[in-house]
Amino acid sequence: MANKVKAFGEVMMRLHVPGNKKLEQTRALDMSFSGTGVNVLTALGKFGNQTSLITTLPDNNIGEAALSYLQSLRVGVQDIRRDGDHIGMFFLEDGFDLRPSVVTYTNREISAFHQAVASDYQMERILLDTDMVHFCGIGLAVSENARNTMFSIAEKAKERGILVVFDCNFRPKLWKNNIQRARNDYQQMLQLSDVCFMTEKDAIHVLGYATDEVERKSQIQNLIPKVAEKYGIQTIAGTIREQLQDNKHEIEGFLYTNANFYFSKRYVFRIFDRIGGGDGFASGIMHGLRQQFSKEDIIQFAMAAGILAHTTYGDSPISSDKEVWALVSNHDPDIER
Amino acid sequence: MANKVKAFGEVMMRLHVPGNKKLEQTRALDMSFSGTGVNVLTALGKFGNQTSLITTLPDNNIGEAALSYLQSLRVGVQDIRRDGDHIGMFFLEDGFDLRPSVVTYTNREISAFHQAVASDYQMERILLDTDMVHFCGIGLAVSENARNTMFSIAEKAKERGILVVFDCNFRPKLWKNNIQRARNDYQQMLQLSDVCFMTEKDAIHVLGYATDEVERKSQIQNLIPKVAEKYGIQTIAGTIREQLQDNKHEIEGFLYTNANFYFSKRYVFRIFDRIGGGDGFASGIMHGLRQQFSKEDIIQFAMAAGILAHTTYGDSPISSDKEVWALVSNHDPDIER
Amino acid sequence: MANKVKAFGEVMMRLHVPGNKKLEQTRALDMSFSGTGVNVLTALGKFGNQTSLITTLPDNNIGEAALSYLQSLRVGVQDIRRDGDHIGMFFLEDGFDLRPSVVTYTNREISAFHQAVASDYQMERILLDTDMVHFCGIGLAVSENARNTMFSIAEKAKERGILVVFDCNFRPKLWKNNIQRARNDYQQMLQLSDVCFMTEKDAIHVLGYATDEVERKSQIQNLIPKVAEKYGIQTIAGTIREQLQDNKHEIEGFLYTNANFYFSKRYVFRIFDRIGGGDGFASGIMHGLRQQFSKEDIIQFAMAAGILAHTTYGDSPISSDKEVWALVSNHDPDIER
Amino acid sequence: MANKVKAFGEVMMRLHVPGNKKLEQTRALDMSFSGTGVNVLTALGKFGNQTSLITTLPDNNIGEAALSYLQSLRVGVQDIRRDGDHIGMFFLEDGFDLRPSVVTYTNREISAFHQAVASDYQMERILLDTDMVHFCGIGLAVSENARNTMFSIAEKAKERGILVVFDCNFRPKLWKNNIQRARNDYQQMLQLSDVCFMTEKDAIHVLGYATDEVERKSQIQNLIPKVAEKYGIQTIAGTIREQLQDNKHEIEGFLYTNANFYFSKRYVFRIFDRIGGGDGFASGIMHGLRQQFSKEDIIQFAMAAGILAHTTYGDSPISSDKEVWALVSNHDPDIER
Amino acid sequence: MANKVKAFGEVMMRLHVPGNKKLEQTRALDMSFSGTGVNVLTALGKFGNQTSLITTLPDNNIGEAALSYLQSLRVGVQDIRRDGDHIGMFFLEDGFDLRPSVVTYTNREISAFHQAVASDYQMERILLDTDMVHFCGIGLAVSENARNTMFSIAEKAKERGILVVFDCNFRPKLWKNNIQRARNDYQQMLQLSDVCFMTEKDAIHVLGYATDEVERKSQIQNLIPKVAEKYGIQTIAGTIREQLQDNKHEIEGFLYTNANFYFSKRYVFRIFDRIGGGDGFASGIMHGLRQQFSKEDIIQFAMAAGILAHTTYGDSPISSDKEVWALVSNHDPDIER
Amino acid sequence: MANKVKAFGEVMMRLHVPGNKKLEQTRALDMSFSGTGVNVLTALGKFGNQTSLITTLPDNNIGEAALSYLQSLRVGVQDIRRDGDHIGMFFLEDGFDLRPSVVTYTNREISAFHQAVASDYQMERILLDTDMVHFCGIGLAVSENARNTMFSIAEKAKERGILVVFDCNFRPKLWKNNIQRARNDYQQMLQLSDVCFMTEKDAIHVLGYATDEVERKSQIQNLIPKVAEKYGIQTIAGTIREQLQDNKHEIEGFLYTNANFYFSKRYVFRIFDRIGGGDGFASGIMHGLRQQFSKEDIIQFAMAAGILAHTTYGDSPISSDKEVWALVSNHDPDIER
Repeated sequence: MANKVKAFGEVMMRLHVPGNKKLEQTRALDMSFSGTGVNVLTALGKFGNQTSLITTLPDNNIGEAALSYLQSLRVGVQDIRRDGDHIGMFFLEDGFDLRPSVVTYTNREISAFHQAVASDYQMERILLDTDMVHFCGIGLAVSENARNTMFSIAEKAKERGILVVFDCNFRPKLWKNNIQRARNDYQQMLQLSDVCFMTEKDAIHVLGYATDEVERKSQIQNLIPKVAEKYGIQTIAGTIREQLQDNKHEIEGFLYTNANFYFSKRYVFRIFDRIGGGDGFASGIMHGLRQQFSKEDIIQFAMAAGILAHTTYGDSPISSDKEVWALVSNHDPDIER
Repeated sequence: MANKVKAFGEVMMRLHVPGNKKLEQTRALDMSFSGTGVNVLTALGKFGNQTSLITTLPDNNIGEAALSYLQSLRVGVQDIRRDGDHIGMFFLEDGFDLRPSVVTYTNREISAFHQAVASDYQMERILLDTDMVHFCGIGLAVSENARNTMFSIAEKAKERGILVVFDCNFRPKLWKNNIQRARNDYQQMLQLSDVCFMTEKDAIHVLGYATDEVERKSQIQNLIPKVAEKYGIQTIAGTIREQLQDNKHEIEGFLYTNANFYFSKRYVFRIFDRIGGGDGFASGIMHGLRQQFSKEDIIQFAMAAGILAHTTYGDSPISSDKEVWALVSNHDPDIER
Repeated sequence: MANKVKAFGEVMMRLHVPGNKKLEQTRALDMSFSGTGVNVLTALGKFGNQTSLITTLPDNNIGEAALSYLQSLRVGVQDIRRDGDHIGMFFLEDGFDLRPSVVTYTNREISAFHQAVASDYQMERILLDTDMVHFCGIGLAVSENARNTMFSIAEKAKERGILVVFDCNFRPKLWKNNIQRARNDYQQMLQLSDVCFMTEKDAIHVLGYATDEVERKSQIQNLIPKVAEKYGIQTIAGTIREQLQDNKHEIEGFLYTNANFYFSKRYVFRIFDRIGGGDGFASGIMHGLRQQFSKEDIIQFAMAAGILAHTTYGDSPISSDKEVWALVSNHDPDIER
Repeated sequence: MANKVKAFGEVMMRLHVPGNKKLEQTRALDMSFSGTGVNVLTALGKFGNQTSLITTLPDNNIGEAALSYLQSLRVGVQDIRRDGDHIGMFFLEDGFDLRPSVVTYTNREISAFHQAVASDYQMERILLDTDMVHFCGIGLAVSENARNTMFSIAEKAKERGILVVFDCNFRPKLWKNNIQRARNDYQQMLQLSDVCFMTEKDAIHVLGYATDEVERKSQIQNLIPKVAEKYGIQTIAGTIREQLQDNKHEIEGFLYTNANFYFSKRYVFRIFDRIGGGDGFASGIMHGLRQQFSKEDIIQFAMAAGILAHTTYGDSPISSDKEVWALVSNHDPDIER
Repeated sequence: MANKVKAFGEVMMRLHVPGNKKLEQTRALDMSFSGTGVNVLTALGKFGNQTSLITTLPDNNIGEAALSYLQSLRVGVQDIRRDGDHIGMFFLEDGFDLRPSVVTYTNREISAFHQAVASDYQMERILLDTDMVHFCGIGLAVSENARNTMFSIAEKAKERGILVVFDCNFRPKLWKNNIQRARNDYQQMLQLSDVCFMTEKDAIHVLGYATDEVERKSQIQNLIPKVAEKYGIQTIAGTIREQLQDNKHEIEGFLYTNANFYFSKRYVFRIFDRIGGGDGFASGIMHGLRQQFSKEDIIQFAMAAGILAHTTYGDSPISSDKEVWALVSNHDPDIER
Repeated sequence: MANKVKAFGEVMMRLHVPGNKKLEQTRALDMSFSGTGVNVLTALGKFGNQTSLITTLPDNNIGEAALSYLQSLRVGVQDIRRDGDHIGMFFLEDGFDLRPSVVTYTNREISAFHQAVASDYQMERILLDTDMVHFCGIGLAVSENARNTMFSIAEKAKERGILVVFDCNFRPKLWKNNIQRARNDYQQMLQLSDVCFMTEKDAIHVLGYATDEVERKSQIQNLIPKVAEKYGIQTIAGTIREQLQDNKHEIEGFLYTNANFYFSKRYVFRIFDRIGGGDGFASGIMHGLRQQFSKEDIIQFAMAAGILAHTTYGDSPISSDKEVWALVSNHDPDIER
């Protein structure tokens, strides 16, 4: 596959408090750069795909540092604009067991990304060498600029037959009370989407579906086909996640495509770095589709990719496909030497 | 409540070996300052109380560093004396699972705190703006000076109607074979106390009580009322702690007041930083009493405060009351963003 | 002197790249909090003055971290408001010899401080226990809100006979082409000021004075008295600084008061941390005035305080008065042991 | 026992990626030096034995650093040769839960150790003050030079009545397809050995034994006596290890000597640093034999030593015998203070 | 200029001892990746050129880390082969003033780069989009494989009219006594070169020239034209460097082209990171030639680029052209804010 | 020379504030162990001498860490006693240029070393394999115990014909007003000494000599022969040090032996780590005497060793004799590669 997979999304500076301390306890921060698009493309790049991120970075030393970081993740940077002075940031304080982790966002609304409008991007050139574009629902909520640009790219991609991938990533806090506005936006994006990441929660809370099922897996089996049919979505995938004690999760992936459900093995595992876990799963699905794996392989690969992302430092998953397959094969996780 | 809560106690330099190494494996140490009084006041300060520590710090750069550190914890410092050259220190080597943590004390007997005598402190001024004073049983054991000063402050506080809070914190090692001397001192302090932190172990091993009960909770229900009655203590609180495998504890808090017992939820959790966990619990009780929470709320709040203290870096608990209530409400400890 | 010295000013998060690296070379940042007001009050606090900072910090974990940091510097915090989500930030990349240091500001306009308006502050209460207030010219340039609040406090202080101290700190970049607006603002502040920090450059570039003198010291002796007379300023002080090779500066302080000039010794020294050097000097002058040192002592003390600030880590000077006097006495800077 | 216990083995530089990161995520490495012989002697030294390592280190700053490190571990260095330019190295990337740790070896074949031939060592002098020598099976696989030197020392030791200790440590990867060559070498070493560390896996996969037993413990009870008899080995010891979820192992030690089996308690514990765990166990057996503990004590001591090694930073176990006995006594692993 | 500038050269892992310590004093190392080709392309990339490195990296996690690092430096990686297990390494111990820095090489001969032969590289494809190729004389000395590949690429480049750039970088230690072999190789490379970096020392010690001049600048003016003429080299450039006390150098760049000499300003400056300083200068010349700066500008730009490289952390220069021009303009190196 | 050089002296824990910060600015400390005896023996060990330190370390984890550290420095440890709980400590805050470094001692009087009395040491065994013992004047001042033990060892050494080396190291602060007591002690030690380190200051301020000379070198030439004659000291050596600006020193070594003076080259250099510089010089003299270098070589070697000690991290000099000779030969301090 000669063409590239691209993603439209914000790059944020992650300022991570080391040693499980709280921000007020530290004098040092670990800096990295991430974002849903960055994470998905990083994972896809490690699997051997050519990638490119569509975004805007500030035209100063902060942008230069972000650019260097993205390149170290092997993310393609030829579609990145440089403009403005600010970048979105978040402080990450790791919790421990019953003490939750805390993310504090800052500086986001005035970031170069959210100041950029659709016409700032050279759409024609960007979509020329592309066969798949990834979007994330968070962008719909944060700024009108990002929202409009997202629709603009998705529409143009759809017209050109480029696969549109949409990760719902619904964050109630960002939409505040305006659920109706969220529903409109999500419906519009779903109509443009070929591949979508969501769970029964999105169907219920955003799209307004109801179900008599109680158990999560049954809810999914009940609701996801309705969504797929209504919005004409080829493929919907997601995870059924249950939080256990002591930072452990129990998780199972599902893939709904061509009116069939495929489920991965269930895993119980402890989390090392929570952010970007979902992006690891998404990248696995996207890679499997691009490589035309069997459906069964796609969901197994994606779930394993997601789990490795949860157990890897940083938001951006960097496991190789060989490492992902090793986990699928139930490879013994003792030391490799 | 306009008046302050104060604590009389030693400030120690904590030299923590990072990375779960042993002291002989490290070339770097993490320095902080703590102590029972420091810890309790730090937590109370985060809950919004005005605090002040009654202690003596060396009159050199070491004392200056301690002072700066205490202030970063928001502990009130107007009652701190500066004198002498030494500070008590301990080296903390974290264990891992079956390997125990090790604390090595040094330099304690000659510390500015243990060299100071009662008359060095301006008692009148100190007790003027105070409505609660906290003491810790460790001070009784380490030096005659600290012991005498403790009694002197407690007596004067009692006279003035200031609430006297006493945390038994009995450490057999410090008293060596002299259990009789310990018993006398503890009895004397208990008679001065309005609020006391203890468990059935203190009743049995220090005060010499006996019980036919076998199970810990029953022992507590049997013995604590006897202690309260004998010494005229309004409120006694403590925790029933069971150590599980893999650094996990199972814990339940109790509060005995007005002849009634109140118990918290039971929690199972993994420990991040063991020291200061008890002080987190104590601060929760003290805050609840000052705020006149319902008895049920006091013990739930205190137990949650204690657990957060166990899962937070450093000896001194710095969770906000909002964070404590979130744990009480069984808030899902996933990432907050 | 029972009353406090206060400062009105912004608190910024300083994100310092360690090891003289460029931002794009690092994965770690050193975090601290500073600002002109913070720096001046930190130094004054170390000299034994009671201080309080008038500012607004965000009402989240970032603000909490800032507050803890300010307290570790012993800055009084009772006049600090908590509101909003953002704090001004700057990235500091240290240069080396011919490679200049670089400061990149971000997030400043939307900071809690610059969003706050004059009426947000409880002026009456704030000025009640105050006998000196410090202002910095940078605040005039960054936001209308800060500018208006500055004038409002200065005027009210003037009315109450509180000493108004103004540090010109003129930064051409911040005013861009609008020199006329700058001149108006500076003239207005100078009319309110009792003590002012400036050099011949401010007189020429901001206030529009001209002189036939060529040498800097002569220009100062020519222009400063004119400024003092015109605006009715009691005391003007500043430094004559020449940059030498290899990060060295040659520097001499001047004090003009009651129509007389006083000069400090000239020093040649290498710089360790450039930011906050001027604030060290200012704090020395303010301390000397409060303590009613002789004029000769004031300028010697201030210059030595300024030099120690240049050779100390961080923006905020933390030398004790004993250390400052030792440098004045030409104390041999070998190791003290 | 006045004579020394020695070990022949390679010293490798361990370059450990901190913070559970992958190598490509780090800019910093933790450096230490280890190896089977180093590890065994370090543990034996902490138990009070006089030790000496027989090896070759490069004659440059790298060798100097290795030497300093070994001495900090208290390993005797009088039998260490200095020659050549290279040292074997490995990069260690810690995994997390389902993500396995990875060891990447480099530079090993050209190391000073593997370039040295038997005649380079002063055998006579080396064996003079020795009563026990330890060998590791890895050396047989990596180079012809190390293999020949190992046989040469073992034979000379055997002749002199020095106890020969052999740890099979069979690593299939190193022998690739040449199982027959491995079998010959191992048989030759076993014939020279008085004490041997192995499990049923070595008996089956290297020596070609078969058993009808299914359960591991039964296989050991079936096969180990046959091996001991055939090769005339006095003592064989090893562990029965089962890997559980979440980095936990269940483990039980066995000791077969004088035709009797002795088993330790079973432990379940979480692993902190996997490498060197087996060497901790081996050192415990060797120490017990040297000190003529009862057989029951030997295996309990060894298993506890092995577990502490798994929970200690670094490859080389540094627990004292007091700490080992404390674990045997089921000492409560709460904090020691 | 649409085509790329490429470099053929080894990538080495740099293991830097932090804090000016000696290797035996540290437990931590800073890891980066560099090499003459890497350094030159990094600088050229920061100046806006498209670059690509021709090299071989090991096909394991070490190679993966190197690749990620090169990309963070923006070096083009499409011509990098992956093969073998080893990478060349060097340990860097910084000196201080009279104590010299020390570099200890290891693992170089068996590196993937030095094991690769000319036919391993896809020459046709590599030279297709290229208009300039850089070579370094060190490669001639280390292995026959690298030497042959260098000649092979240089010849093919010459045939296609691609500009051949050769940096003599003569290191006597690497050639030991075989000056005749060095001379032959250097003569052969010079005949293929269009641009060459050298000084009078190379002319004298490698090529065997003699001169009656005593002063270095005169020697250069005497010898360089002879070399240029004899080998038909269009452009020769280099620096005249004098080492002063206290880590300071005095330096002046020269450019000889079309039979004319051009000299830069002389600079005196202190060195921060010595390695890669020459590569900064070389990159400046190459950039100037590609951009067709005036000769005067080329040498000023190159010398300033070289100086910034000496004052920047790491081997690989990362100053932007804007920063280089600022130094040329004698921009005041105070803090930029 | 088969016998060992020994030193009697205190081992102190050095807690060094990194990054030129003040103690109140740091949360991390670098830990090492040093002392005059440790430093001298470390240097002598690097030069190839067998060494052993006569001291007492606490019998806990702190002592264990000290022991491991000393061994990493290659100091012989067979004469070290283990007893008590405490070790002397000092905090080291590095200054910068005009800001002086500060050393804060703590915990010294109660240290295991100063609690030990002469009879605790097994004198006979200790002096058996010794041909040179080093003492430091600081020990005379700190405790009666150390003072008495020092005299006891020196006398016994003298009796056995073992060379007694005494470094005056007079610190006025430690003796307070009691100059007469100091004089008595020093006179007593000088009478026992064969080799002594001192300057004209010791002669004047401690021993009470007077001289008409003004210049330091002349004072030395005038006074040192008188001291040598009076106390019958074979060899006296020291340095003439002048402190320049910007952390630079100008220094020249002198050696007086057999009634002749020998002087080293004069060096101007910048200091990296001040403590232990004098011990580097002393070790050079002692090594030269043991190796029977020419007098000229001894003083050149010693001065170069002293300078390298000033430019090396840590108190304990670890330069090899090869590195010292390289500096003597005026070897160019560029990078060695």
